Amino acid sequence: MIILGIDPGYAIVGYGIIEYKNNRYRVLDYGVITTPASMPLPSRLLKVFDETYVLLEKWNPDALSLEEIFFTTNAKTAVAVSEARGAIIVASEKLRVPVFEYTPLQVKSAVVGYGKAEKFQVQDMTRVLLNLKSIPKPDDAADALAVAICHAHCSCSLLSKAH
Amino acid sequence: MIILGIDPGYAIVGYGIIEYKNNRYRVLDYGVITTPASMPLPSRLLKVFDETYVLLEKWNPDALSLEEIFFTTNAKTAVAVSEARGAIIVASEKLRVPVFEYTPLQVKSAVVGYGKAEKFQVQDMTRVLLNLKSIPKPDDAADALAVAICHAHCSCSLLSKAH
Repeated sequence: MIILGIDPGYAIVGYGIIEYKNNRYRVLDYGVITTPASMPLPSRLLKVFDETYVLLEKWNPDALSLEEIFFTTNAKTAVAVSEARGAIIVASEKLRVPVFEYTPLQVKSAVVGYGKAEKFQVQDMTRVLLNLKSIPKPDDAADALAVAICHAHCSCSLLSKAH
Repeated sequence: MIILGIDPGYAIVGYGIIEYKNNRYRVLDYGVITTPASMPLPSRLLKVFDETYVLLEKWNPDALSLEEIFFTTNAKTAVAVSEARGAIIVASEKLRVPVFEYTPLQVKSAVVGYGKAEKFQVQDMTRVLLNLKSIPKPDDAADALAVAICHAHCSCSLLSKAH
């Protein structure tokens, strides 16, 4: 199973592509999509859409795993991040890749086994599970890999329950 | 100048297409895009994207005029509406139709001349300006026509200022 994990945003989108087979993870790619602050927001959203689309076409994942966002004090940022999420979800739906969504609590529980884990613990456990020498950089890419692991873990639990 | 006004949403998207020429408005089309509650949200967002894209291709407007949303008490709804806005904006950018955004206050001021106007006043003035016999139904379509008028009015002011 190939999973594209996404940490959504309009300035920086973290992505991580992993393969999960026989209870083992393998990293295929990770990185970030960035858009310059000088670009009008609609053009930034199109760039997020286009580059997500390219990733989906290249890797043809079985699932897109997206981190759920929460409302902070900055409503304007929350709107823009949600708009970027809309762009990402539409790209995925266009290519018939099912979209799954996980809360930060679910991601932490899946990766570390503890919903209140610190950011560093999540990143280090991501490194261990993916058999990487160092923590992936930047943070957005590490977060995206963690949400990809979360989907592998969760759908694995679902499959176990079905038997 | 042809303007596509949009009242964004994920369950119901109001749209109104007007032509503004020689200080006169003409309605070309209006209506709503709807998505069933039984449909998963990603599929609803794709439907909004696809049907907006079809409208843009059909009418080839000079501008897309979008009503800005404000955060209400329901954060979940606000996220979903913002995601739908993202889908609409990407469709517009894909076809190189510039996107403009107006607050409800700007729409009311442009249509009625008074930022605190009641909903009915805005709808009735929309009817008068567009030379329609009755208020367009449903409300979402009337709101979309109002935001289209707002863009005509605002860009007209901009042009006047340039001279």
